[in-house]
Amino acid sequence: MTPERVGMFSDAVFAIAITLLVLEIPRPEEAQFGDLAGFLAERQGSFMAFALAFLMLWFSWRAHHTLFDQLHRVTQPVLLLHVPLLLFAAFLPYTMNLWSEMSSFHGDGEASKGLALALFAGTEAILMFCQGALFTLALVQGLLNGNASRRRMGTSAWVYWGCGVLWAVSAVLAFSVGEDSTYLWMATPVVVAVIVFVRRRFAPGLVQPELPGQT
Amino acid sequence: MTPERVGMFSDAVFAIAITLLVLEIPRPEEAQFGDLAGFLAERQGSFMAFALAFLMLWFSWRAHHTLFDQLHRVTQPVLLLHVPLLLFAAFLPYTMNLWSEMSSFHGDGEASKGLALALFAGTEAILMFCQGALFTLALVQGLLNGNASRRRMGTSAWVYWGCGVLWAVSAVLAFSVGEDSTYLWMATPVVVAVIVFVRRRFAPGLVQPELPGQT
Amino acid sequence: MTPERVGMFSDAVFAIAITLLVLEIPRPEEAQFGDLAGFLAERQGSFMAFALAFLMLWFSWRAHHTLFDQLHRVTQPVLLLHVPLLLFAAFLPYTMNLWSEMSSFHGDGEASKGLALALFAGTEAILMFCQGALFTLALVQGLLNGNASRRRMGTSAWVYWGCGVLWAVSAVLAFSVGEDSTYLWMATPVVVAVIVFVRRRFAPGLVQPELPGQT
Amino acid sequence: MTPERVGMFSDAVFAIAITLLVLEIPRPEEAQFGDLAGFLAERQGSFMAFALAFLMLWFSWRAHHTLFDQLHRVTQPVLLLHVPLLLFAAFLPYTMNLWSEMSSFHGDGEASKGLALALFAGTEAILMFCQGALFTLALVQGLLNGNASRRRMGTSAWVYWGCGVLWAVSAVLAFSVGEDSTYLWMATPVVVAVIVFVRRRFAPGLVQPELPGQT
Repeated sequence: MTPERVGMFSDAVFAIAITLLVLEIPRPEEAQFGDLAGFLAERQGSFMAFALAFLMLWFSWRAHHTLFDQLHRVTQPVLLLHVPLLLFAAFLPYTMNLWSEMSSFHGDGEASKGLALALFAGTEAILMFCQGALFTLALVQGLLNGNASRRRMGTSAWVYWGCGVLWAVSAVLAFSVGEDSTYLWMATPVVVAVIVFVRRRFAPGLVQPELPGQT
Repeated sequence: MTPERVGMFSDAVFAIAITLLVLEIPRPEEAQFGDLAGFLAERQGSFMAFALAFLMLWFSWRAHHTLFDQLHRVTQPVLLLHVPLLLFAAFLPYTMNLWSEMSSFHGDGEASKGLALALFAGTEAILMFCQGALFTLALVQGLLNGNASRRRMGTSAWVYWGCGVLWAVSAVLAFSVGEDSTYLWMATPVVVAVIVFVRRRFAPGLVQPELPGQT
Repeated sequence: MTPERVGMFSDAVFAIAITLLVLEIPRPEEAQFGDLAGFLAERQGSFMAFALAFLMLWFSWRAHHTLFDQLHRVTQPVLLLHVPLLLFAAFLPYTMNLWSEMSSFHGDGEASKGLALALFAGTEAILMFCQGALFTLALVQGLLNGNASRRRMGTSAWVYWGCGVLWAVSAVLAFSVGEDSTYLWMATPVVVAVIVFVRRRFAPGLVQPELPGQT
Repeated sequence: MTPERVGMFSDAVFAIAITLLVLEIPRPEEAQFGDLAGFLAERQGSFMAFALAFLMLWFSWRAHHTLFDQLHRVTQPVLLLHVPLLLFAAFLPYTMNLWSEMSSFHGDGEASKGLALALFAGTEAILMFCQGALFTLALVQGLLNGNASRRRMGTSAWVYWGCGVLWAVSAVLAFSVGEDSTYLWMATPVVVAVIVFVRRRFAPGLVQPELPGQT
């Protein structure tokens, strides 16, 4: 089993899932045609959900093929990890749909809104954990090419585990605080920056022996 | 006609079908937003159907490209077998939908539930028979690469024929015993293990001449 | 512009269209769950439409890549022909849907049934004309590889033009005779056989100079 | 990150979006089966929207891979530009749906029709601006292959920026003049011709040093 074949199948699933997202945005019904602007304004949460899910799958794709471009072989555990990774990537449109529908629901359903948010954030967290586990496996099982930077791969692993924890926490919080838990998502770039900074500051020894290989 | 081109088209159909499955999971209607947890709990059968159909297509993809990575050419019968293989792979989302809808149907419809299950299991059985036939054809028509293990290919052929029979039996049983026939599906790993064991035990002669090639 | 890139894009469109067909098969509504067998029996026309559209796209794909495997370059007219080819390949699911819905419609709508059939057969005819034109262009503009058989390509061109005429006639007939025009479709293999026979019998001069190249 | 990998992912998104368009064409409901011809005639705007959106995605794909065939590497800004490019390519089916539904809406909704048109034209404009920016970036950052024609790339950049401005203007006009703004779309070939003519006439110095490379 070559990395190319698994990489192409995963690429295809990411590309299809990212393009299917559009089918989950609510369309106006006959009665709502008269006031399209009002309909779209009320459904702005759906467009935000679409854009966010799109970005998430885009970054998942990038992380996946950044890794796979640097693998020289694929092991059974790496292959097995693709089952949850691709299952939840393919499932993301459903959770996006739930969140999108909920965001414009006016009835009495705080618990339902929290649940929809938790499912969306939880799916994201699982995707990130899978990516983190893939990077970790590649390091631990020695699957990287000769010219791959082990330090950069290690940082990527930490970044995905860290962001996964952040989104998992936001998923749990969504049950109690509802939509306020989405503020936590904005901390994602902060988590990334902190992890990159800490790795540079406290793990400098890792950098040295690789300097010739990096140029 | 090269194996690469047929392999890529099949890969694409499997990847699209596996990602389209998500469109078949029932979405809550306006009235059900208030109690999303209740809706999801009632529809848990749909999520199981989604996960199972996903796994089935994933294993179909793996079997297909494990075989195609080891073919050096493609014959007319191999090509013709792709018509039922891809037709039923593309059809699987429909049978998943039927089973998924039926699993949360409360009305009087034991016969309908059995039929939905039979269609799902039957589609799976056809997929497995097609895979078994592909492996068998590759062996009989001598299409394998020089470095492919004939013994392992033969075991794969037996495994797919055996699992196909199991699922075909469960499809027939579904008409009379309904959902209880799904317990038979859990025997799939047992069937695999028994076939692998029997092949190792009683067809050892096949192993010897290949030992050097396997390393 | 290389044949590979155009070929892969067309492959992708064919693969997606062939897998989207399943979404056009009518699903039972709540009230029909109780009698699933009755629903499926009534909708058998839909399953026939699905299988036929699947076969059509499969043969379109095969014709397309059989040709493209033997091209060494792509010209502007070849590229332009892909606009109607892919447009109507992508449109086929819609006409399949119309025909499928019509086949189980009990109301007073002979004219509508004829129209739905005419649209389906007309779309097929356009696909075949595009394929015929592609084969003809490849011959006329000298785009074939050195080891491609000009005679076989010429026969393919004639086959697609001939079948296109048959389906175009059936589309026109559908307006007056309705579903009886579908009997004409069964003549497709006959048309293919006659064209292949006539080419072999009356254009033998073309065969001779190529004999060494064919082995 | 190689151009091949990004190019293939973009190809896949374009191919999927172009094939998903068909799902957005309105299908007749039970009550409309009796008069299918009437239904289709009334919905002719939807078919025009489908064909136009198809053409737009086709040209987007062609522009994208014409460029990517001539890149030797990909930079971070080029990669970042793919986020809006692919996001709006994937979003196009939604705006096509809005325009399609609006075109056959008989109620009182001039403002809604203008908005639907504006969203469709605006999405197209964004796609063109992204393509223009990609061509410009490739020139400015020196990403082109040795045998790529800098002059032709420059003309492509101007063409996409120019057409983008035309469609952006039509999007703004749609709010006040409604459907009449679509006449502006017909000026697209004129804009292309003028830009190509002006580049040839007033930037001839660019042509000379490349003449040997062009043959």
